[in-house]
Amino acid sequence: MEKIPYKIYLSENELPKYWYNVRADMKEKPAPLLNSQTLEKMGYEDLRPVFCDELIKQELDDDTRYIEIPQEIRDFYKMYRPAPLIRAYCLEKKLNTPAKIYYKFEGNNTSGSHKLNSAIAQAYYAKKQGLVGVTTETGAGQWGTALSMACSYFGLDCKVFMVKVSYEQKPFRREVMRTYGASVTPSPSTTTEVGKKILAEFPRTGGSLGCAISEAIEKAGELEGYRYVLGSVLNQVLLHQSIIGLETKTALDKYGIVPDIIIGCAGGGSNLGGLISPFMGEKLRGEKDYRFIAVEPASCPSLTRGKYAYDFCDTGKVTPLAKMYTLGNGFIPASSHAGGLRYHGMNSVLSELYDKGYMEARSVTQTEVFEAAEYFARCEGILPAPESSHAIRVAIDEAIKCKETGEEKTIVFGLTGTGYFDMVAYGKYNDGLMGDYIPTEEDLQKGFNSLPKVNK
Amino acid sequence: MEKIPYKIYLSENELPKYWYNVRADMKEKPAPLLNSQTLEKMGYEDLRPVFCDELIKQELDDDTRYIEIPQEIRDFYKMYRPAPLIRAYCLEKKLNTPAKIYYKFEGNNTSGSHKLNSAIAQAYYAKKQGLVGVTTETGAGQWGTALSMACSYFGLDCKVFMVKVSYEQKPFRREVMRTYGASVTPSPSTTTEVGKKILAEFPRTGGSLGCAISEAIEKAGELEGYRYVLGSVLNQVLLHQSIIGLETKTALDKYGIVPDIIIGCAGGGSNLGGLISPFMGEKLRGEKDYRFIAVEPASCPSLTRGKYAYDFCDTGKVTPLAKMYTLGNGFIPASSHAGGLRYHGMNSVLSELYDKGYMEARSVTQTEVFEAAEYFARCEGILPAPESSHAIRVAIDEAIKCKETGEEKTIVFGLTGTGYFDMVAYGKYNDGLMGDYIPTEEDLQKGFNSLPKVNK
Repeated sequence: MEKIPYKIYLSENELPKYWYNVRADMKEKPAPLLNSQTLEKMGYEDLRPVFCDELIKQELDDDTRYIEIPQEIRDFYKMYRPAPLIRAYCLEKKLNTPAKIYYKFEGNNTSGSHKLNSAIAQAYYAKKQGLVGVTTETGAGQWGTALSMACSYFGLDCKVFMVKVSYEQKPFRREVMRTYGASVTPSPSTTTEVGKKILAEFPRTGGSLGCAISEAIEKAGELEGYRYVLGSVLNQVLLHQSIIGLETKTALDKYGIVPDIIIGCAGGGSNLGGLISPFMGEKLRGEKDYRFIAVEPASCPSLTRGKYAYDFCDTGKVTPLAKMYTLGNGFIPASSHAGGLRYHGMNSVLSELYDKGYMEARSVTQTEVFEAAEYFARCEGILPAPESSHAIRVAIDEAIKCKETGEEKTIVFGLTGTGYFDMVAYGKYNDGLMGDYIPTEEDLQKGFNSLPKVNK
Repeated sequence: MEKIPYKIYLSENELPKYWYNVRADMKEKPAPLLNSQTLEKMGYEDLRPVFCDELIKQELDDDTRYIEIPQEIRDFYKMYRPAPLIRAYCLEKKLNTPAKIYYKFEGNNTSGSHKLNSAIAQAYYAKKQGLVGVTTETGAGQWGTALSMACSYFGLDCKVFMVKVSYEQKPFRREVMRTYGASVTPSPSTTTEVGKKILAEFPRTGGSLGCAISEAIEKAGELEGYRYVLGSVLNQVLLHQSIIGLETKTALDKYGIVPDIIIGCAGGGSNLGGLISPFMGEKLRGEKDYRFIAVEPASCPSLTRGKYAYDFCDTGKVTPLAKMYTLGNGFIPASSHAGGLRYHGMNSVLSELYDKGYMEARSVTQTEVFEAAEYFARCEGILPAPESSHAIRVAIDEAIKCKETGEEKTIVFGLTGTGYFDMVAYGKYNDGLMGDYIPTEEDLQKGFNSLPKVNK
């Protein structure tokens, strides 16, 4: 066994050649998507007007355990992967904990997060299908940036609907997208019917992710040779993001390290699902046991305070229904600096696994998160994204518990990205102006009231 | 010989344990620093009130070829190094060139550039000397950010004077520094005598690097247990930055790659000097031959249009005199988006090597640079800093020449950092609003008139 270095980089020939589909190892499969009108199960043909063909196959495939990563995608992965698995020696020392802490760092690429792992796959299948371009929505801008990079690489047009308030408040992410040749439209816009309708009703709205999704779907349907793509929530995204967990597992196995606890932040579930997939597979097959902890913001607690029910994936109610832990499509999460975690629902696979007790969940407040973020940045030299810092918070909490009990647990967490475009949030924290927002029971009830009738 | 991967990462035991001091291999040493009043050579004792003791020794040491990197610094280096040496396969393909292009990427750390290599060394020696803290100046903010991170790691106080216009226009870098616990003061300020004087005379000034240097030096002298530190220009900085070249050389040697041309952007010279040092050593010892190209902005062309003369290192004329290629301390570079290259002079070692013909220099305009930056970002997936993009421009130009001549040259360039905090500049380029500024002969003459009398 080699000595464990600060950073474990796999060599090129150790990089995964297959994505891992955790659904294949689930005895009880995640519930299927339903047509919101007929309540019938959505099949391949039903989804073709909106999604790319190959991606629909992946979305619906609950059985194939390993799906080969096409060579073109692996070539792109080589440009910014492997992501390092880093031993947090300095953090451990500062915490004075017997715990061993590792983190998988996905921020070493220009999109600044793990989103690129799925963006490049989705762009590849769109290109292979002979499409002209894709449409999507973006909130804070990480997914839009990742997709712009992927489309630029394959020569696809990329139309991004960016939530208007982010478009205005985060001009830098917008400029990164433009530098990669994407067109970025503030949403709601006058370029779609749904946008016009919303603007007529609420002329001064700053937009929402739900509205931007609706606009992007409408635009994809309207343009010849376009499809709609999405950066989280979907099962296909979890599949692509399994590259995170596969690399992590290969690196750990190489040095004989067995994690006790694996921690990830959870918005739509793309990062968490990707990170834990191969480990969850072992747990589902009864080969090994691990603790998995999903960390969500106290302001948007879909797992810890939501319901397991069928719901729309957007607030505009144009998508199919997915069974998931949800706060209701009408739930409006309070303004928070972890825009990537402000989602009312949760991927169906993770929802099912959580419901069956394979995974834990914990919610943390924004100020607790930024305290951990700053502590981590000063020890480890990486300024984390607010989203990623949710995982840091709980990793630190678990490491402190180990100090109290004297247990030498091995903790692995996902550091999904960097906070370079989140300095307004850090500024508020530095100035002591950051607040916490925890929904009341009444707030939650309002959200639950928006759940579709199918659940009743 | 192993197959050459996209990215060459050295293993921990391949990381350099010594910095390389290129002065040891120069037959004609760079000219010494002079006291601006007496014109006498500055010695160790003369510099002690301002600089850290060990750093002065390194500054004055023209003879020791290898200087051991202390273990504490090597531990910190392990957190973000080795920096990858990346084969630009996609760029080569898009350019359709027979040239082989490699770049050493120094942007994978939160400071976003190579500046951290010297910041951590300077903070270490300050701590070892038992100092309380350090002062410095920063323009665009890369050096200030790097120093904040380094000081946070060693528990040193860090006082940064940030050019006022940058302080206001680049609030994000300021927040990164604050997150690492530094205090950041817009310069000119009322916290120093020189600041007050300048404010009295020019109450609405946006400040300058020259003024910020003067304030930082005054503050260091005034506070018990503080010294002043500087991120470029000095010979000690070149020494620390030799880590870039040493890693690059080890990676190339490992795969039997011999570069023909080595290219770096040049402001004060820290990155270029660090990158080329070990290769220049071979050239100076007559063992190998390489072409070295320093790339500077056409708006601030110290090597290509400056004079080799004694000059102040700052515009406030409080520093010793250094012999260097300079546009004159009174030269005011036009506003440009490569703030890190807006310096009137050039490190003395590089100036001497350039003067003796060991190195070439080329100047490029801002729009040419951003054209190359965007082209590179789209191929290679990394959004480069404007400064670094000067090197990209010339690497592309040389690769195009190879296409024309059919030569299979191997080109290595330094990609010093990322452009995540430079999106205002990219936005201007995207909007077609970027201008070019080339000083007239008259502009240059004004600068030369400010050169001290010692040259006459």
